Amino acid sequence: MPNIDTVIKDLIIANRILAKEEVVDAYGHVSMRHPDNPKHFFIARSLAPDLVERDDIVELGPDGQPVRDETRPLYLERFIHAAIYEARPDVQAVVHAHAEDILPFGIAKATPLRPVIHSGSFIGARVPVWDIADKFGDTDLLVRNMDHGRDLAQCLGSNNVALMRGHGFASAARSLIEVVRMSVYLPRNARALLHAKQLGGEIKYLRQGEIDARNRGYSPYSTETWRAWEYWATKAGCSHMLTKPDHAHGHKK
Amino acid sequence: MPNIDTVIKDLIIANRILAKEEVVDAYGHVSMRHPDNPKHFFIARSLAPDLVERDDIVELGPDGQPVRDETRPLYLERFIHAAIYEARPDVQAVVHAHAEDILPFGIAKATPLRPVIHSGSFIGARVPVWDIADKFGDTDLLVRNMDHGRDLAQCLGSNNVALMRGHGFASAARSLIEVVRMSVYLPRNARALLHAKQLGGEIKYLRQGEIDARNRGYSPYSTETWRAWEYWATKAGCSHMLTKPDHAHGHKK
Amino acid sequence: MPNIDTVIKDLIIANRILAKEEVVDAYGHVSMRHPDNPKHFFIARSLAPDLVERDDIVELGPDGQPVRDETRPLYLERFIHAAIYEARPDVQAVVHAHAEDILPFGIAKATPLRPVIHSGSFIGARVPVWDIADKFGDTDLLVRNMDHGRDLAQCLGSNNVALMRGHGFASAARSLIEVVRMSVYLPRNARALLHAKQLGGEIKYLRQGEIDARNRGYSPYSTETWRAWEYWATKAGCSHMLTKPDHAHGHKK
Amino acid sequence: MPNIDTVIKDLIIANRILAKEEVVDAYGHVSMRHPDNPKHFFIARSLAPDLVERDDIVELGPDGQPVRDETRPLYLERFIHAAIYEARPDVQAVVHAHAEDILPFGIAKATPLRPVIHSGSFIGARVPVWDIADKFGDTDLLVRNMDHGRDLAQCLGSNNVALMRGHGFASAARSLIEVVRMSVYLPRNARALLHAKQLGGEIKYLRQGEIDARNRGYSPYSTETWRAWEYWATKAGCSHMLTKPDHAHGHKK
Repeated sequence: MPNIDTVIKDLIIANRILAKEEVVDAYGHVSMRHPDNPKHFFIARSLAPDLVERDDIVELGPDGQPVRDETRPLYLERFIHAAIYEARPDVQAVVHAHAEDILPFGIAKATPLRPVIHSGSFIGARVPVWDIADKFGDTDLLVRNMDHGRDLAQCLGSNNVALMRGHGFASAARSLIEVVRMSVYLPRNARALLHAKQLGGEIKYLRQGEIDARNRGYSPYSTETWRAWEYWATKAGCSHMLTKPDHAHGHKK
Repeated sequence: MPNIDTVIKDLIIANRILAKEEVVDAYGHVSMRHPDNPKHFFIARSLAPDLVERDDIVELGPDGQPVRDETRPLYLERFIHAAIYEARPDVQAVVHAHAEDILPFGIAKATPLRPVIHSGSFIGARVPVWDIADKFGDTDLLVRNMDHGRDLAQCLGSNNVALMRGHGFASAARSLIEVVRMSVYLPRNARALLHAKQLGGEIKYLRQGEIDARNRGYSPYSTETWRAWEYWATKAGCSHMLTKPDHAHGHKK
Repeated sequence: MPNIDTVIKDLIIANRILAKEEVVDAYGHVSMRHPDNPKHFFIARSLAPDLVERDDIVELGPDGQPVRDETRPLYLERFIHAAIYEARPDVQAVVHAHAEDILPFGIAKATPLRPVIHSGSFIGARVPVWDIADKFGDTDLLVRNMDHGRDLAQCLGSNNVALMRGHGFASAARSLIEVVRMSVYLPRNARALLHAKQLGGEIKYLRQGEIDARNRGYSPYSTETWRAWEYWATKAGCSHMLTKPDHAHGHKK
Repeated sequence: MPNIDTVIKDLIIANRILAKEEVVDAYGHVSMRHPDNPKHFFIARSLAPDLVERDDIVELGPDGQPVRDETRPLYLERFIHAAIYEARPDVQAVVHAHAEDILPFGIAKATPLRPVIHSGSFIGARVPVWDIADKFGDTDLLVRNMDHGRDLAQCLGSNNVALMRGHGFASAARSLIEVVRMSVYLPRNARALLHAKQLGGEIKYLRQGEIDARNRGYSPYSTETWRAWEYWATKAGCSHMLTKPDHAHGHKK
């Protein structure tokens, strides 16, 4: 089991990667379940992900409230994370973001987002679209409380990603590295599908068997997964924070 | 009430942010109403926004002319600002720019630009398109005098943004931070709508109630607004110029 | 009349700007007519524009051949420049480039490229498409001699830009600053038109009277033109090479 | 014949160029046939191409296995390279990558990728699409063994590029410089064709005679080819590693 210091360093790296890869901008956030206390999770206080440092990470409880005295403002939408951790014991990490190229698929009803490229397989065969208006009517579209969060989590179900109409997406995975990777390739898969539609004719989506085969082969600390994590962290200027697992072979420097 | 020095520092930050976020290039400008003298406004002399420094800010009067001796050239289109301040006492800040991705919506008549993403809500339900040719015939498309400016301001009406056919847009807001934020998300909303149209089928625009709800919740110095301003200023290399309002909690550095 | 040293410094700046603004990459070139000897012109030897320095500028004669001993290789397509200078005494500067976003308009026959945005007005109402195959059959598409060059110049006629099918464009203007500016805004105008077509419905092109009005108002050393030149040179890292004309007011640094 | 040290330096440059030009990210790889032992080839160990250094290059045999003791993990898909070298004695260098803009052409069945721009001519008149599912059914889409690799090589045939459905492409050429150049311009050609299709009407593809003429004129160490290699290496920060062939004239620095 990783120690807390490593978990938090990895969470900072995740924040920086998501900023550098333009999945988040000033908005959007990534969290990680507490490894020793599965009812809690770590997330930054209200701050642009690219600026997050060690002291900015806070520990929140199952209701999305801080477990220690905290005077600094928190993300309004931290309930996305709290509700998904509550509903999905298998989930260890969550991302919420507004990555631009997934937005059209939440707005246009005709074309569901589905995996078409191998690096997009992890989004799963079905990506439901959650519309906050269906249950809550006219809102500011933000997930401001546990009721909102639980409705989103219900829509997500056992899937890995839910689009949020006119807003963004929530993704959930078995590890921090996996949720970051999925969140980076999600917009790329969306662009590939958008452009394939423009070319016209029949689209060859990934087959269910292919999605399953890729899922079976996935390991968050495989050489191939580590390769991307190491590369993205280096691009984002935080290679010095990398903690290499014993069984991963990486760059010698 | 903010002092003049702070206002001008914020205006410089706004110039740099708009350049970094590619809302402006060599052209385009941002202004702010004088906090003590609402008939005057601050704007840079004729200079690319990314190069604007303290001494480049000039004070213009209601006719768009400098209130002090000024030998340096001014923006030809400063009348956009003068006319909007004249017509709209509620407006504290104005942007004019040519951001590329809004241009198609001023050129193609079939698809009005409307908010489809939550960060685009502030452009408002209706974005009128001003065509200078309707009243002035064949011109060089520039807003070269108060007549042009007033016609544009009339088209803008009580809306937040007017597209200018074959040219760009003018946006107006209750604060500098708000007008910058709106101008950054305007092209993003335009891209999301363009791509959603390409996916085909029915488009889910923001509902009027959603636009209203977001508008009610907006505050220029909220934690969430400050988060973006701080992030953009940092990206644009001028975090050292930030003046944090007492009630905003930001990055400790 | 500018001295030769200033002309050459400006030509180096033009090379760097076109590279930074992604009009050229390893390929593409910009030239300037010799101010004292209108039958000659300056252009770099065969080198990526971003790497061009003082010693890389060569002087070519009306046949596109060097007027002094030159052992270094020259651009294969220097005949584009030679032929346009020959045919068009009014032209002082020429660009040839492969800027990506104009390519579709040379390939798809249905949609002519025309100005739709005010900064694109200088390309002129008509942008002919030159197809080397029409006269020369199967070639490698390169303008390898004066015959090719003259055929292209004939297609260009009195226009400012000719697209070259499956290859790129050639643009010609009354000044170096103007040809650079036109070459930077040409792809932007192309993107605006492509996206407007995707939105569907009627397109509002610039009116002939608008193109004429903008053309009448243009001066290569106006404040507005200088503003872009200064900004682009600064972005490209060569603001220290700027030579400000007496009648232009620029950045104090 | 180049010495091994030069070959390996060039291979490192190729890795960095492909990363900088966004042909590869954490994934994708480039290899070069051993100049003295044509049954062997050089490729990096499993590492993001942008991070590859001298010690990361390994020598693999005809079965894609290392010819020396090697404890570090290797690219899972090295069999793409091994199988193409086996099938194509003319091929000296191979790239496999997931460059985003070619993906739609492997997914949408209606529009074959064909050269439309002169810099895209080297992909050849026919770009077959290999679908791993045709022979191997449900897989994780990776080329994990020689059987997969040989099936891909068979689909490639005597062509220069094969698209891999839902995955990426494999390209093969007579020299390292050529395979890099082809891999950089392949996505650009794809974008030009995609956008031309959006403009509608008839598309003017390159003619067979034009493709042939360009192919005849191509030399990996011509001034024109070297110009791009030098420029890209400089952009990628490794101009100091360039080895200029005697007959190429380059930048003096």
